[in-house]
Amino acid sequence: MPPRPVDVPALVTAARAGSPRAVARLISLVEDAHPALREVMAALAPHTGKAHVIGLTGSPGVGKSTSTSALVAAFRARGKRVGILAVDPSSPFSGGALLGDRVRMQEHALDPEVYIRSMASRGHLGGLAWTTPQAIRVLDAAGCEVVLVETVGVGQSEVEIAGLADTTIVLLAPGMGDGIQAAKAGILEIGDVFVVNKADRDGADATVRDLRHMISLGDRTEPGLWRPPVCKTVASRGEGLDEVMEAIDKHEAWLDATGTRHTRRLRRASDEIEAIALAALRARMGDLRAGHGIAEHAAAVVAGTTDPYAAADDVVAHLA
Amino acid sequence: MPPRPVDVPALVTAARAGSPRAVARLISLVEDAHPALREVMAALAPHTGKAHVIGLTGSPGVGKSTSTSALVAAFRARGKRVGILAVDPSSPFSGGALLGDRVRMQEHALDPEVYIRSMASRGHLGGLAWTTPQAIRVLDAAGCEVVLVETVGVGQSEVEIAGLADTTIVLLAPGMGDGIQAAKAGILEIGDVFVVNKADRDGADATVRDLRHMISLGDRTEPGLWRPPVCKTVASRGEGLDEVMEAIDKHEAWLDATGTRHTRRLRRASDEIEAIALAALRARMGDLRAGHGIAEHAAAVVAGTTDPYAAADDVVAHLA
Repeated sequence: MPPRPVDVPALVTAARAGSPRAVARLISLVEDAHPALREVMAALAPHTGKAHVIGLTGSPGVGKSTSTSALVAAFRARGKRVGILAVDPSSPFSGGALLGDRVRMQEHALDPEVYIRSMASRGHLGGLAWTTPQAIRVLDAAGCEVVLVETVGVGQSEVEIAGLADTTIVLLAPGMGDGIQAAKAGILEIGDVFVVNKADRDGADATVRDLRHMISLGDRTEPGLWRPPVCKTVASRGEGLDEVMEAIDKHEAWLDATGTRHTRRLRRASDEIEAIALAALRARMGDLRAGHGIAEHAAAVVAGTTDPYAAADDVVAHLA
Repeated sequence: MPPRPVDVPALVTAARAGSPRAVARLISLVEDAHPALREVMAALAPHTGKAHVIGLTGSPGVGKSTSTSALVAAFRARGKRVGILAVDPSSPFSGGALLGDRVRMQEHALDPEVYIRSMASRGHLGGLAWTTPQAIRVLDAAGCEVVLVETVGVGQSEVEIAGLADTTIVLLAPGMGDGIQAAKAGILEIGDVFVVNKADRDGADATVRDLRHMISLGDRTEPGLWRPPVCKTVASRGEGLDEVMEAIDKHEAWLDATGTRHTRRLRRASDEIEAIALAALRARMGDLRAGHGIAEHAAAVVAGTTDPYAAADDVVAHLA
């Protein structure tokens, strides 16, 4: 089935005017790797770079959805337009399929200044590295001043999210493991702000102390480096949110004062370009393979008239 | 430190004459991705394609080393020169480091017609896909008529080994899980010959029955397709080895009669060429990145004057 034709300029204009339908359609184009994506991205480019991208990650059960919802309320109280990407790294499904899980965000569902989208990252097009940055671009260009990317901390996803965000919030809950386990999980390196949620439970202070201690042992104590604060919240009751917002503000100020925001975005753009270029090369290689380009070389290798390196050189020479 | 210069023609001549030192040096060049590797592979190419490559995989504890050793003895009794690659997919170490584990193969250690090599596959150069096929080429060119590749069945390694071998032997032991677990683990698809080792233990017959039943449910029952036999052995006493050798012979005859050997080798060569080409492209991309080629594009993306797709197009255009 050929893809539906897309009126890109109209769609981009509508998305920038705040049409949720247009934003939804653009993100679907991203997820489908639609042929119009290049035109979309070219049209969006001049309007990007304004959103503050906040990553929020944590193990299952720490209260990510509730915390995201509370943060959205706080940003809405400031009059900001907010975009939310809920990325499920373990699910092959996306779009509407996961929205059932977003019940806790229902309070924002009818707010026209809040855009909520669930995305899968394990599709055939690769992980977070591929679709999420493009979806962030869409929300950014659509005028979202804050883009919250929420993902469950499993495997590589929390490291990937830290690569995408300006500010990464790592969420923990009391009794879900001590500081040493956090260090082992590699989350000490990626968090810009740590939040111990469900702080009305036993052991919250111990978890906070533990985390502060582990952070003090790290290499982030040098002057000029950002020292991640550890906040306590009860997100379900909105408690401690002011502290978290203050930490985000301070981190944003630090990002700008030190030029770190620009450095991070340069690195992120490099990663993105590289991922797209590699995917393009891989696709061309696939074409070559289907078109018997590699097959002829393989036959020569099997016959012993050439070797795999010489064959690969030739393949590479004919790619670009 | 610049790599030691290598006299490739002398080394290849010595390896083909049966010098274990020369073979060892060539495989080390493979593991190190030495600059001389291209010259080595070009020199070896005309002498490859003669060895029958047998993959042997199974969970820890099923008796892989003992079975390998018994198979080597059986091939030696036929007067064949045998190469053994013991690939440890979980270890970053290689070469001598693992040979302590090879004690059970000591009986062959002094046989000049047997070449034993341990290899790690989790090095910085990638998995089985990268080094193992090149090491097989070395042993093949050095006149090994049989190359046994032994690897522990964890993660992807058994699937990778099946991609490399002409004949894949899957080793099991009684009581280590039933046929359904085997099906879940994906080993039913990859085995050309199944061997239930430690057949003097309780439950051996049930395991054999289970396997035969699961195989009969698969898609390998069509006429002309290979129906994997299930053999029983007590490798430590050499029992049942004749049956396994007969199964290997039959599979080899089937490979040749149906042209499957050639098809498999073509696919293997294609995989190899593709892996080398992709690695070369990735390396060039790394050079570009270090040399500010991608950095300039990233700056333009961050500034919004271009988009990642256009930037990637340009990067790809300047690669080859």
